[in-house]
Amino acid sequence: MTVVGIIAEYNPFHNGHLYQLREIRRHFPNAVIVVVMSGNFLERGEPACVDKWTRAKQALVAGVNLVIELPVTYCVQPADRFAEGAIKLLQELQIDYLAFGAEHASYDFLAMARKVQHVHGDFSRFNESYAAAYQRAVTGKLGYSVEQPNDLLGLAYAKAILINHASIKLYPLQRVGAAYHEQNLPANQFIASASSIRRAWKQDTKKVLPYLPIGSQAVIQRDQPVSWEDFWPLLRYQLIVTPLEQLRQLYDVTAGVEYRMQQQLESLMAVSPLTFETWLQKVKTKRYTYTHLSRLAVVVLLQLTNQEVEQQRQNPYLRVLGFDIAGQNLLHQIKKTSRWPLITKISQNEKKGIISSDYKAGRIYATVWQQAQDLKRLPIILNR
Amino acid sequence: MTVVGIIAEYNPFHNGHLYQLREIRRHFPNAVIVVVMSGNFLERGEPACVDKWTRAKQALVAGVNLVIELPVTYCVQPADRFAEGAIKLLQELQIDYLAFGAEHASYDFLAMARKVQHVHGDFSRFNESYAAAYQRAVTGKLGYSVEQPNDLLGLAYAKAILINHASIKLYPLQRVGAAYHEQNLPANQFIASASSIRRAWKQDTKKVLPYLPIGSQAVIQRDQPVSWEDFWPLLRYQLIVTPLEQLRQLYDVTAGVEYRMQQQLESLMAVSPLTFETWLQKVKTKRYTYTHLSRLAVVVLLQLTNQEVEQQRQNPYLRVLGFDIAGQNLLHQIKKTSRWPLITKISQNEKKGIISSDYKAGRIYATVWQQAQDLKRLPIILNR
Repeated sequence: MTVVGIIAEYNPFHNGHLYQLREIRRHFPNAVIVVVMSGNFLERGEPACVDKWTRAKQALVAGVNLVIELPVTYCVQPADRFAEGAIKLLQELQIDYLAFGAEHASYDFLAMARKVQHVHGDFSRFNESYAAAYQRAVTGKLGYSVEQPNDLLGLAYAKAILINHASIKLYPLQRVGAAYHEQNLPANQFIASASSIRRAWKQDTKKVLPYLPIGSQAVIQRDQPVSWEDFWPLLRYQLIVTPLEQLRQLYDVTAGVEYRMQQQLESLMAVSPLTFETWLQKVKTKRYTYTHLSRLAVVVLLQLTNQEVEQQRQNPYLRVLGFDIAGQNLLHQIKKTSRWPLITKISQNEKKGIISSDYKAGRIYATVWQQAQDLKRLPIILNR
Repeated sequence: MTVVGIIAEYNPFHNGHLYQLREIRRHFPNAVIVVVMSGNFLERGEPACVDKWTRAKQALVAGVNLVIELPVTYCVQPADRFAEGAIKLLQELQIDYLAFGAEHASYDFLAMARKVQHVHGDFSRFNESYAAAYQRAVTGKLGYSVEQPNDLLGLAYAKAILINHASIKLYPLQRVGAAYHEQNLPANQFIASASSIRRAWKQDTKKVLPYLPIGSQAVIQRDQPVSWEDFWPLLRYQLIVTPLEQLRQLYDVTAGVEYRMQQQLESLMAVSPLTFETWLQKVKTKRYTYTHLSRLAVVVLLQLTNQEVEQQRQNPYLRVLGFDIAGQNLLHQIKKTSRWPLITKISQNEKKGIISSDYKAGRIYATVWQQAQDLKRLPIILNR
């Protein structure tokens, strides 16, 4: 049995993702396709535009055989750690290949990773972000620059494979259609970037349907994608009541950024209504990028402590969101070999124990999504 | 100079309050009238229906000469401690008389207070609230029961005067018109209970105008009085993310009530939309009354710690909300004799220091009221 793994966020699931799955299926007709998917809060430090169940269902309908949730403590991480977490899960799921889209599918990502494996950004320049410093160091080592977002992710995956000593082969797929950061919907094709879809969705729900797989009407039943603005009143409130020393207990909230987040909020007191966007732009510096700060904002919103992140790392698990018959067969096999708990329904112990951070994140998300995310939820079972 | 003190919440300021002030003025034509007024969160554990500045202004217009804010750490207390805090402030303001409305103005409240001064409720019965136990004990001691809410408050004031060894004389005023808990607006008179006014306000703003002093249109500019439902999303969120051990650091949040608040919220997960009211009714027990729990809810919302309450007690101050020329003269006199800081404009030090709890409460309230409550706010000066 060949198992192909994918790391995805599906924010939202669109025709580009469908195309990727079809390509994989064309190359590996009999493979089991497993997706490790972010839950309700994503790598770029934002809430998912639709909940994890809706996105898992779409992936299954589009041909994925098994969907596993990436724990939130891995989601709110920069690319390298995000990749490490996801690869750890995929390794436990015994995948043979990791498929991913890349702007340069011809790159030998593993060879590149070997070269830059021990490269770290020079973080002593205080007027530059970690991402920029790292990119400069990589360019120095490789002799050419890797700049495109999916190429960089591919490199992060390859590095994570080396770090985890995983025997996973890479299967990069040439990306077609829209660029990752493209902000406008393209006119004459049906693949658009996720961010352009979310952007258009805010203006007119109907405009985005051509870019989503057939049957996606239910996905965009909400007038608006869930966004930071939905959680902003909660974050703002938390920044007001949480003492500095308590903020410093939170994951990666250090080096004065906690003070800056509070101080800038206070300075904007007279702005009404104040948006998340306005606040974050004010907090931003050359060192703290928009994305980095967005992640810290999720950490504050969810009150994720250092202790929680460490606890999750030491007590891994596989949370099953959905499967079909092929996925179920793989699950049976994994159950025999893996020592990690396989979680299909959350018990009282688990919600207070190993899965408590995901459970908390789900409850916060549900205050906006208005549907319980974890308690009494069973995996989606797709009968083809 | 005779100084008459009043303890008030003015939620909202209505014709009953106006009547009280006129009666006081009739008896003490040349007195300076000082009000110690709750800020934006009140003794019964709820947000004020209009902000403290609007309410202070109305009191001044109606004849009060000086309005001082009762710190929030005193506001979220049961009657006895609320009274102690307010009397402490009024003592520092050198009042001669405390005027208050009572259902039985003929009672000798100080004499009653001497009898019940050391009475405490038998708190060993777990199926009864502290208030009920205390009332039973008082009845046993006096030989008759004091049951009406304003009589009970009067008794609390008298006890606080004894405890503080204050040389303050009582001036009880017979209450006229609506009963304190009356829920409906009376048809043929212009004095209604504050709760009936708030209730009618929710249905139709115009209905309440006859019960408010002339010129109150500006007060009810909002469609709805500010209520717990405005802050409920924030409280609910806080109850989800705050660990039990952290809840236990908060003032008076002990003995398992912290667990009960979280647990009942979780059990109501499927109710959508879930209101504050529904949640609180579910948390309520025979031991924990609605009001007691509402106060704890304010403590959780504002994240008021034991340490903050203690710090406030040890570092008292007088926060000035407004005055006229007579009030200003009194302030000049107090400035000479009092060792307490007289705060008219909040400095950087004060907002992080002695007044931090009020400042925090003001910022939370302002997220709904949408007008800064403390920073850069100067006392209202009324020129008659």
